[in-house]
Amino acid sequence: MLKVETRQEIEDLARGATLLGTGGGGDPHVGGLFLKNQLKTGAAVRIVPLAEVPDDAFVVSIAGGGSPAVMVEHLESRTTLERLMARAERFHGKTIDYIISGEIGGANATLPLAAGAISGKPVIDGDGVGRAVPKLDMCTFSIYGARVTPSVALDDLGNCIMVEAVDDATAEKIARPTINVLGGQRIGAIFPMSGATTKRTAVPATLTQALELGRLIREARTTSDDVAQTLIDYLNRDKARIARLLFDGKVTDVTHETRDGWHFGKATLQGFDGATDVFTIDIQNEFLAARRNGRLVCTMPDMILVVDRETGEPLTGESLTFGQRVKVIGYSAHPMLRTPEAIAKVGPRCFGLDEDFIPIEDL
Amino acid sequence: MLKVETRQEIEDLARGATLLGTGGGGDPHVGGLFLKNQLKTGAAVRIVPLAEVPDDAFVVSIAGGGSPAVMVEHLESRTTLERLMARAERFHGKTIDYIISGEIGGANATLPLAAGAISGKPVIDGDGVGRAVPKLDMCTFSIYGARVTPSVALDDLGNCIMVEAVDDATAEKIARPTINVLGGQRIGAIFPMSGATTKRTAVPATLTQALELGRLIREARTTSDDVAQTLIDYLNRDKARIARLLFDGKVTDVTHETRDGWHFGKATLQGFDGATDVFTIDIQNEFLAARRNGRLVCTMPDMILVVDRETGEPLTGESLTFGQRVKVIGYSAHPMLRTPEAIAKVGPRCFGLDEDFIPIEDL
Repeated sequence: MLKVETRQEIEDLARGATLLGTGGGGDPHVGGLFLKNQLKTGAAVRIVPLAEVPDDAFVVSIAGGGSPAVMVEHLESRTTLERLMARAERFHGKTIDYIISGEIGGANATLPLAAGAISGKPVIDGDGVGRAVPKLDMCTFSIYGARVTPSVALDDLGNCIMVEAVDDATAEKIARPTINVLGGQRIGAIFPMSGATTKRTAVPATLTQALELGRLIREARTTSDDVAQTLIDYLNRDKARIARLLFDGKVTDVTHETRDGWHFGKATLQGFDGATDVFTIDIQNEFLAARRNGRLVCTMPDMILVVDRETGEPLTGESLTFGQRVKVIGYSAHPMLRTPEAIAKVGPRCFGLDEDFIPIEDL
Repeated sequence: MLKVETRQEIEDLARGATLLGTGGGGDPHVGGLFLKNQLKTGAAVRIVPLAEVPDDAFVVSIAGGGSPAVMVEHLESRTTLERLMARAERFHGKTIDYIISGEIGGANATLPLAAGAISGKPVIDGDGVGRAVPKLDMCTFSIYGARVTPSVALDDLGNCIMVEAVDDATAEKIARPTINVLGGQRIGAIFPMSGATTKRTAVPATLTQALELGRLIREARTTSDDVAQTLIDYLNRDKARIARLLFDGKVTDVTHETRDGWHFGKATLQGFDGATDVFTIDIQNEFLAARRNGRLVCTMPDMILVVDRETGEPLTGESLTFGQRVKVIGYSAHPMLRTPEAIAKVGPRCFGLDEDFIPIEDL
């Protein structure tokens, strides 16, 4: 049984979630801090394997929305999470049996655990995408037939918005401007679904994966000369997926812009041997596509992981700054994100990139 | 008992509502068309005086939202209005006893009557402002203590948004971007309130006023040489209010812009004796302020009525075009809109104008 109980476990989980956030997803340390406070008061969070959820259970995903830059400044209060759970149960007219993360990458890894600690409800070991994505309808939940709405969302002031959308693309369209109105941050109970649907649509065991990755990076700092390589070796132990070093260099330029509730940007890196080896990363909350000297080396939904060259600490798009020395790792997305129906929702063209998805192993 | 049953009564009501829309409020002919269709099928609409509503009745306001330019292009279907009533009753957990118009000026005069004809629910003779205003929190309902939310809103596609806001300014902030998302048009059940609250906060007998004004204009076309003057004389029969001719001339310039869900513009008029006599009107959905040769002659919440010089047909801000020959009438707002608490919500400064409210009789 997976446990997230100690200060170190929470920090490891947050580190792993930041890595899986592939540049976006918001700061998991915010939810982590909140979880630590809960655990100090004697609360516990029970994490259960996806396979153990009964078919007829009622599951919701607890997720924060908004641009990561704004999300960092807001620490959800216990009151808001309590209100959200109560309001969602009243709206749906039934008790929530399980909580699941919408996306393991970033803030939405730890926020559901905080909600679990407050409410005593078990949290499922899994999530709705296995990484971070900038839109609700890019989740595996949505791709494989669960629906974002009926949803209930609250802000810290007590404003509540309930939505029943005709489809998830519309749910996303409704959510985005509303997030801006509510001061950039809100928490929602979304993807209300049965246990059976959850088991069919969730990416399994991603809380475990995030915790293990975070622990591995921490431990490798004392046991390994090359943290990034240790991480790559670890990721490659799963024979269904592949990881490889894409670049080793320093950040020479990075642009940031917050627009329509998203963080857009572009990072440029150069090798240590001068300006001839140029690496770029397009950003829309998450790292979308990486190119070395103009040639594509990794693209959505495959994962671009940027870590500090020495410590292996995962870096987000908005934390990238001039002069940082980093290693960039390419990591194939979970197989559930690479099916034709998934690529139609989360492939490069869904982000305005004029190219087809090519798996990292073919690049 | 007020009746709106014949084709002519509906057209008179729509004409009067356009006049009271003071340039905005959307096209009441849309709801009027829909009401005609309902009446043809044998449906009837029962209109009751405000004073007769029981204290413990459950009242909601049925209102369309969105920029008038977009609203004109959407004719709400019977299905959408039926769905809205049913969804609102389920959301509130009780039966709606009465419907009331949010604002008598424009589309929201006739839409509640259409909802009344479909549902069989009586419609109250009155509204929440006595004219048109561009924001929900500018209604007398809101000024005197009713709340916009909990609200239920639908679009024609079946998307539904329910809001519980901490105050009406926030409700307005939430509504505005959502309107844009939903294709510019939605219908809401807002201001859920008791009969007692309705009687305290509504402007009474405004359906009657709109119908009478519309009829007066039509009849004056055959009985009067000066329709505008006949209208002014009629308005001045209410000793609590005042009407006067502000300008007689032609439209020489008009700007239109749809931004953030509002229609902004400015109209410039000149007298028939040449370019020396210049009259301007600022527009934000409604006519906000009128100036003659730079001197203020009428400002919010007092009403600026622009009518065709010959027919007395009321003109909206977006229907103003170069060369139109018009008369402009100033009409004092209902006394409920001129109290200090009302001026704080709907006076000139609420529209970014750098001047205090001065009653038309003092200008």
